[in-house]
Amino acid sequence: MAAVKIGIVAPARPITQVQADRVQALAALFTPEVEIAVHRQCFASEGHFAGSDAVRAEAFLNYANDPGIDAIWFARGGYGSNRILDRVMPQLGPAARTKTYLGYSDMGFLLGALYARRIGHTVHGPMPLEIGRADQGASIGRALAWLVNKDCRVLEPSLDAGGERRPAAAFNLAILTSMIGTPWLPDLTDHVLMIEDVSEPLYRIDRMLFQLGNATQLKGIAGVRLGMVSDVVENDPPFGETPEFIVRRWCDALGVPYLGRAAIGHGAGNMVVPFGIA
Amino acid sequence: MAAVKIGIVAPARPITQVQADRVQALAALFTPEVEIAVHRQCFASEGHFAGSDAVRAEAFLNYANDPGIDAIWFARGGYGSNRILDRVMPQLGPAARTKTYLGYSDMGFLLGALYARRIGHTVHGPMPLEIGRADQGASIGRALAWLVNKDCRVLEPSLDAGGERRPAAAFNLAILTSMIGTPWLPDLTDHVLMIEDVSEPLYRIDRMLFQLGNATQLKGIAGVRLGMVSDVVENDPPFGETPEFIVRRWCDALGVPYLGRAAIGHGAGNMVVPFGIA
Repeated sequence: MAAVKIGIVAPARPITQVQADRVQALAALFTPEVEIAVHRQCFASEGHFAGSDAVRAEAFLNYANDPGIDAIWFARGGYGSNRILDRVMPQLGPAARTKTYLGYSDMGFLLGALYARRIGHTVHGPMPLEIGRADQGASIGRALAWLVNKDCRVLEPSLDAGGERRPAAAFNLAILTSMIGTPWLPDLTDHVLMIEDVSEPLYRIDRMLFQLGNATQLKGIAGVRLGMVSDVVENDPPFGETPEFIVRRWCDALGVPYLGRAAIGHGAGNMVVPFGIA
Repeated sequence: MAAVKIGIVAPARPITQVQADRVQALAALFTPEVEIAVHRQCFASEGHFAGSDAVRAEAFLNYANDPGIDAIWFARGGYGSNRILDRVMPQLGPAARTKTYLGYSDMGFLLGALYARRIGHTVHGPMPLEIGRADQGASIGRALAWLVNKDCRVLEPSLDAGGERRPAAAFNLAILTSMIGTPWLPDLTDHVLMIEDVSEPLYRIDRMLFQLGNATQLKGIAGVRLGMVSDVVENDPPFGETPEFIVRRWCDALGVPYLGRAAIGHGAGNMVVPFGIA
């Protein structure tokens, strides 16, 4: 009998059956006490998305409201989870409130909206699609180690530093800034905010940090940590500033300290960040 | 003696001396009663920008606070005007309050911040860089016709439709959404909001419209018009929805009517939209 049951759904873009099979094989090896249910919606396709908004919303609600499932593990990002927020949030029942929800990137829309309502335990960390990463399954294993065993060794290192324990939250910068000024953004007062981004030129990173640095809703955060800034698109001409320099500048505008780097992002070193106090 | 004096500055990226010369030649032909002063900052270069933030801010303030200049015509967009807002806005004096400010794209940051403070007359329209457009100078001529003669024939057609006169505002979607949740966004209550965008894949257009459609600050707008959506970057896979369909969807979320198309954007048909009542 499985000690922990994980349900995989895809609120943005689809994965393939082969990817799902490989994740299950790896899970059987790493954490044999786990049972993984992959919702067939993960393989659906409609335009950009893993099925229509209605289909993706229904799959998420189906698993989130199932008392037999302990955790929702989001299959991948890729854009789209924001489109189901208004459908799913009012429909989450008692079973949804005790679950863990794990993912990152575009899934930040759902993690943010859940955290705003204090529904379940929201966690920023690797997703099943990362079965394709050349890391011998380390990313997948890290997510499973948290979901199955709450293994503190997979936490982002600054969370485990002892001493002062401050609440944390982690987001893709593009997703976080897309929630600013909307009711979907959670209250991050007193939180250490970790941000990461991928596949953007530096002028866009700077523009997003302008919004973060001027956001009325974020005035009360405890500070900012910068995760990976991966696959940076070439700026023409060269931008002339580094990502860390840019973050420091906009932290000054916001009036909060820059606290250094964070081991999160679109890369093999993406560690686990539970929202709130780890 | 010139009847109207226009000053050109570049708060984002630079233009070349040749481009400036050609704009002045065209102005001499179209509107001989105009004098155009091109600030040498327009040709400066530092990393991504037309000079450092300090240099760009100083050039803008120099011309904006000059009582001998009637209008500021922004040289081009390209990212960067947001970085001088906190330097320039508190320094604008009496002469700045009676001027016209004309530009679009990245200049929306300045137009928005000026309009929020009711400083001068802010206008969305073609910029000097468009001397490079294969339109026999029509774009440039349109901006000059407004700056020099307040020629109503260059207005975006829905503004000149007679009947009900509602205030309007026009923005690049990426710039508008970057101001949401910050104090730089003007109050657009009861305004017809016109939006345009360029060089984005449809999933990003959809994501930006999600933010617009959920923005608390925009709940009171009168409606939305969609301008050009140009040079759309291919979505992989095909997105499955048109820009107009996407706008209608998020207008529904915001609870405001979609009012149809607008003749604004990154293209030869970019008409003039004065902010407020034309």
